[in-house]
Amino acid sequence: MNSIGRILRLTTFGESHGPAMGGILDGFPPGISIDFSKVREEMRTRQGGREGTTTRKEHDDVEFLSGFNESGVSLGTPIGFIIRNHDNRSRDYSELKNVYRPNHADYTTERRYGIRDYRGGGRASARETVSRVAAGALALQYLELLGVTVDVRLISMGHFRGETEIEFRREAERIKEEKDSVGALVECTIRGVSAGIGNPVYDKLSSRLGSAMLSINAVMGFEYGEGFKGSKMRGTQMADEFYSVPTSGEGSDGQHIPDIHTRTNHCGGIQGGISNGEDIIFRVAFKPTPTIGAELQTVDQAGREVSISSKGRHDPCVGIRGMAVVKSMAALTIADFFILHKGTGWRNE
Amino acid sequence: MNSIGRILRLTTFGESHGPAMGGILDGFPPGISIDFSKVREEMRTRQGGREGTTTRKEHDDVEFLSGFNESGVSLGTPIGFIIRNHDNRSRDYSELKNVYRPNHADYTTERRYGIRDYRGGGRASARETVSRVAAGALALQYLELLGVTVDVRLISMGHFRGETEIEFRREAERIKEEKDSVGALVECTIRGVSAGIGNPVYDKLSSRLGSAMLSINAVMGFEYGEGFKGSKMRGTQMADEFYSVPTSGEGSDGQHIPDIHTRTNHCGGIQGGISNGEDIIFRVAFKPTPTIGAELQTVDQAGREVSISSKGRHDPCVGIRGMAVVKSMAALTIADFFILHKGTGWRNE
Amino acid sequence: MNSIGRILRLTTFGESHGPAMGGILDGFPPGISIDFSKVREEMRTRQGGREGTTTRKEHDDVEFLSGFNESGVSLGTPIGFIIRNHDNRSRDYSELKNVYRPNHADYTTERRYGIRDYRGGGRASARETVSRVAAGALALQYLELLGVTVDVRLISMGHFRGETEIEFRREAERIKEEKDSVGALVECTIRGVSAGIGNPVYDKLSSRLGSAMLSINAVMGFEYGEGFKGSKMRGTQMADEFYSVPTSGEGSDGQHIPDIHTRTNHCGGIQGGISNGEDIIFRVAFKPTPTIGAELQTVDQAGREVSISSKGRHDPCVGIRGMAVVKSMAALTIADFFILHKGTGWRNE
Amino acid sequence: MNSIGRILRLTTFGESHGPAMGGILDGFPPGISIDFSKVREEMRTRQGGREGTTTRKEHDDVEFLSGFNESGVSLGTPIGFIIRNHDNRSRDYSELKNVYRPNHADYTTERRYGIRDYRGGGRASARETVSRVAAGALALQYLELLGVTVDVRLISMGHFRGETEIEFRREAERIKEEKDSVGALVECTIRGVSAGIGNPVYDKLSSRLGSAMLSINAVMGFEYGEGFKGSKMRGTQMADEFYSVPTSGEGSDGQHIPDIHTRTNHCGGIQGGISNGEDIIFRVAFKPTPTIGAELQTVDQAGREVSISSKGRHDPCVGIRGMAVVKSMAALTIADFFILHKGTGWRNE
Repeated sequence: MNSIGRILRLTTFGESHGPAMGGILDGFPPGISIDFSKVREEMRTRQGGREGTTTRKEHDDVEFLSGFNESGVSLGTPIGFIIRNHDNRSRDYSELKNVYRPNHADYTTERRYGIRDYRGGGRASARETVSRVAAGALALQYLELLGVTVDVRLISMGHFRGETEIEFRREAERIKEEKDSVGALVECTIRGVSAGIGNPVYDKLSSRLGSAMLSINAVMGFEYGEGFKGSKMRGTQMADEFYSVPTSGEGSDGQHIPDIHTRTNHCGGIQGGISNGEDIIFRVAFKPTPTIGAELQTVDQAGREVSISSKGRHDPCVGIRGMAVVKSMAALTIADFFILHKGTGWRNE
Repeated sequence: MNSIGRILRLTTFGESHGPAMGGILDGFPPGISIDFSKVREEMRTRQGGREGTTTRKEHDDVEFLSGFNESGVSLGTPIGFIIRNHDNRSRDYSELKNVYRPNHADYTTERRYGIRDYRGGGRASARETVSRVAAGALALQYLELLGVTVDVRLISMGHFRGETEIEFRREAERIKEEKDSVGALVECTIRGVSAGIGNPVYDKLSSRLGSAMLSINAVMGFEYGEGFKGSKMRGTQMADEFYSVPTSGEGSDGQHIPDIHTRTNHCGGIQGGISNGEDIIFRVAFKPTPTIGAELQTVDQAGREVSISSKGRHDPCVGIRGMAVVKSMAALTIADFFILHKGTGWRNE
Repeated sequence: MNSIGRILRLTTFGESHGPAMGGILDGFPPGISIDFSKVREEMRTRQGGREGTTTRKEHDDVEFLSGFNESGVSLGTPIGFIIRNHDNRSRDYSELKNVYRPNHADYTTERRYGIRDYRGGGRASARETVSRVAAGALALQYLELLGVTVDVRLISMGHFRGETEIEFRREAERIKEEKDSVGALVECTIRGVSAGIGNPVYDKLSSRLGSAMLSINAVMGFEYGEGFKGSKMRGTQMADEFYSVPTSGEGSDGQHIPDIHTRTNHCGGIQGGISNGEDIIFRVAFKPTPTIGAELQTVDQAGREVSISSKGRHDPCVGIRGMAVVKSMAALTIADFFILHKGTGWRNE
Repeated sequence: MNSIGRILRLTTFGESHGPAMGGILDGFPPGISIDFSKVREEMRTRQGGREGTTTRKEHDDVEFLSGFNESGVSLGTPIGFIIRNHDNRSRDYSELKNVYRPNHADYTTERRYGIRDYRGGGRASARETVSRVAAGALALQYLELLGVTVDVRLISMGHFRGETEIEFRREAERIKEEKDSVGALVECTIRGVSAGIGNPVYDKLSSRLGSAMLSINAVMGFEYGEGFKGSKMRGTQMADEFYSVPTSGEGSDGQHIPDIHTRTNHCGGIQGGISNGEDIIFRVAFKPTPTIGAELQTVDQAGREVSISSKGRHDPCVGIRGMAVVKSMAALTIADFFILHKGTGWRNE
């Protein structure tokens, strides 16, 4: 339940205000030389403390506890890592101990487990994503060796469409000053995935990517290619016609499979759950952060109706820091498919 | 790769034009008396041969081969079932043997496996969903005992918003006459799920539902609650404020958990990946059927550019028959969570 | 719960006296040409109706329903298959409906599920193994392509050590005439597995093989290499010293890994859960068939003490037909590791 | 590959001479108050530094990083924990960097991954079991609440059959002085498991227990009940006849299931893969520690034949410390079945 992936498999642990977050990345290929400064860089893109994000400063130093030799080359063994929790002012939360915050997981967690860590959302906190980014940073380096890159960008924040990150950060600050928060739309493009990666039926590339994205806190929607717009379209508009290119491979039955491409990419690089060699493109909808400065009506553990407003530190728009998480989850998902493909694809026998 | 679910687990097999489709539903609870006429009824809602769908008439008689005693009571053992393929005119497809149809899985399947069954899409055919509906019909009866119901409806077909099913079927016929196809938007509402069903982090109710829906042929998007609209909203608009109701339970730590509800349902009944007791609402975007009568440009196995147009039987809008599949996958997913919850939840209900 | 394997994954269904047994073999590699006469041959080695086995004649014709093209070449899609149950005289069992047979799964099944199919042991019947042999026969042909062979032999039947199969069959008949049954020891040798197949820690080759063997009806023990004798030995006796041979490979770190062998094979070809290139050797202990002609004391569903004796058809020694099952489970397990290894091993990137 | 269990699932990481060992125990039930002094106690039973074991003193302080509230009550969230490696004199191993030690995983690991951590066996070291005991200690406390206890004892060490632990420790010391090591036979008895726990077919209690035991370093055999002796026995000798006892339950079909017991326990408490309410009894064969003081012939990475003898610290008999590991793995396996059973059994106890 706290794991994702089949062969490249991430399992995480950690409550927001416990001693540490962390995880184990199992199935990472052996013999890969990791640049740990790049891992730190990815971690920074997720960190708060800057304009448009929470004031909780998380110096998220990942301590890798296994999986590498002294030269930083992966051993093929599970990679254990922890990130200590430092700036966790639990006092901010003591008054929320018995209150169910609207749109938070307080109430549902308690109904699920009969008990919860009320401090900062406990396990349900977006703080958990720090482990995803640590693991994703390793997956990104593996993909780089395969010629695969993952890019993410903010398309819109509420109705605002900025062009640069700084514009989006300013918009977020502005909304925070209004004691409010706002949703966001994030787009991810994966380049360099050759045709034939993925699986049909229940294990489609689209299904796995969707599942990974919908596991991110505050995500309420996933679409690839034309997505929801496609439900309005005609078959003639949607058709991605093929054209031929010279290079080619050979099928396991000795037949020749030509290298072909599509003139358009309405299907977002995925056909029948399998990559077709075009860019893989998908979008993720983040809802507004539920923690806001404005006053909201709710109920406490004794069943009394109370009103609350957040004085804690929070992000006015999770989309900003969420980009790093989208990127990481995309990298982990695609890397897992590549590893699986080596075992089950026709080319690698 | 051809399985879905953790404890209630469906594995399917079958190529569109092979001898039979079928599957194994493992983990179905023992002691449940099944009404097989209701199974046939669900199967009929997915069948073609009626207005607005393919003319391929599939008398989809499920033959159950195990899992029940003579009185039709489930044994807790795996339920094996097959559906023979009858009306499969393979001659319709012989000329497509060496052609990669646009927006189909022909090319990607061949790149994935080096070989493919070209007849009717083989394994990638939506014919596979017949097994999902057979299994889903059993899950629906289990959920009924728990007081849970699953409803689906077509919201729109392209830009058309019908009110009745017959209106939608006529619109589909109209589009087919234009040698075209059209996308559709389907909404699903699950009622009666008590608060506390689901899991946080990687196994969220939303993540599992999304994954199940995105595994359906032609689905390009999934959203729950406000979904993509939520990315445009403010936190103050999105807040589902709680109010208290009399009934209550008791936590495993002896604490009292009140039974509370939300005044609005922007979050679609899921908070932090766990049900909050409200209706679970999600929407699924189907792209237009790729098989159309109009002429399209593509490439054959020899790399030559060719043009094709479908003379085969096909659905102008997969959304019509897709409703039964959405319903089945929703039922299987929710039933799996209920069974898991009995093992891991605090109340063990 | 009715599945085994990770990538090459077998799921089975079927009660002994239901309409059919069957299964789905998922993850079988594409492009493999199957000789179906060899499958029938393997099935025959498991069949009863001959000296020393049950008189229940099972003409176990496997009907393959998917997974192959018209030429019998595997498609990489799930292989669905069924074996109809014919010679199932349910009347033989009607008087056992309410009785818990000693050493059978009657009582435990009822405590587990609250319901059971009493006819011939239902799901707990060794009849289930017919599906294992059908799937195993495919795995054997895949392994053959990799140069891997699997051999099984009866070492002993009770205290009797025959040399030929006919001797063992006669011994079994003799014991049956005494209205008794007898245990057996079966040895399996897997040749041609190169060094480096397997996994450390929880997924050891030995652990998976043991699990597969212990899942076979009536198996009460598993050991590899010196096994239990090893618990009596000294480290100096047990040591498999290495020696060098010319051929060699190259590590992912550019280092040279020599091809080495051991002078002895006390460890049965597995070191640290991974193959070392020597023959993999293990033994499986079958208990005597619990169904015997002699009278036994037991209890019926009403709690009354009753005495029973089997008039049904049964095997005096499950080891005879069990050999085919051991062989099949070994083949499925090893094939799964090979497929996984292609995805995760250092040589295959 | 580094995980075990289905719902109660342990994933571990760590190389013998890396910074730390550790793991994540996922699926542990919420609301359980843990006595951490008992955890330390279990850890001590596995520790070296005493007579008959290695001189490597591991003060194995487990640091729990998540999964509990401030009062030590489990939250139902994943339990992350680490154990720092302290007394790891890597210099002891530097000369073994390029040598493949006989009966160790050095060579097979390198063939598997193309790279290995040569220090103390890296991931293949029995040091990994420290994480199993940490997790097992939690499972034991959960089982205690269910009335289940797990006991282990040494039956024999080589041909020596001591009566007390101190006698076994002295025998081990004696053998170490001879620069040799010795195998051992360990028996485990699980009491208090009610009838109906387990699964038929591929997920038998016996299969899972066997798999768990065979995943322990140096284990070469597993048997339950009469085990290998059963292969020599007759059906009349093996029969565990039932007798009736007053207490009773009610089946899901409204039928009455009597509470019955067996007069003998040849089957070791497991029938058809499911517990029958008697004591569950199994035995585990440990081979002699491969690391010995005597000189052995082997090969180095350059393919040269060399002779080695261990000057490092090691256990003359892994059975002594292995008892704690057997106990832990048994507890984790049984606890997992209980949790699963709550979800899938008819009584939902």
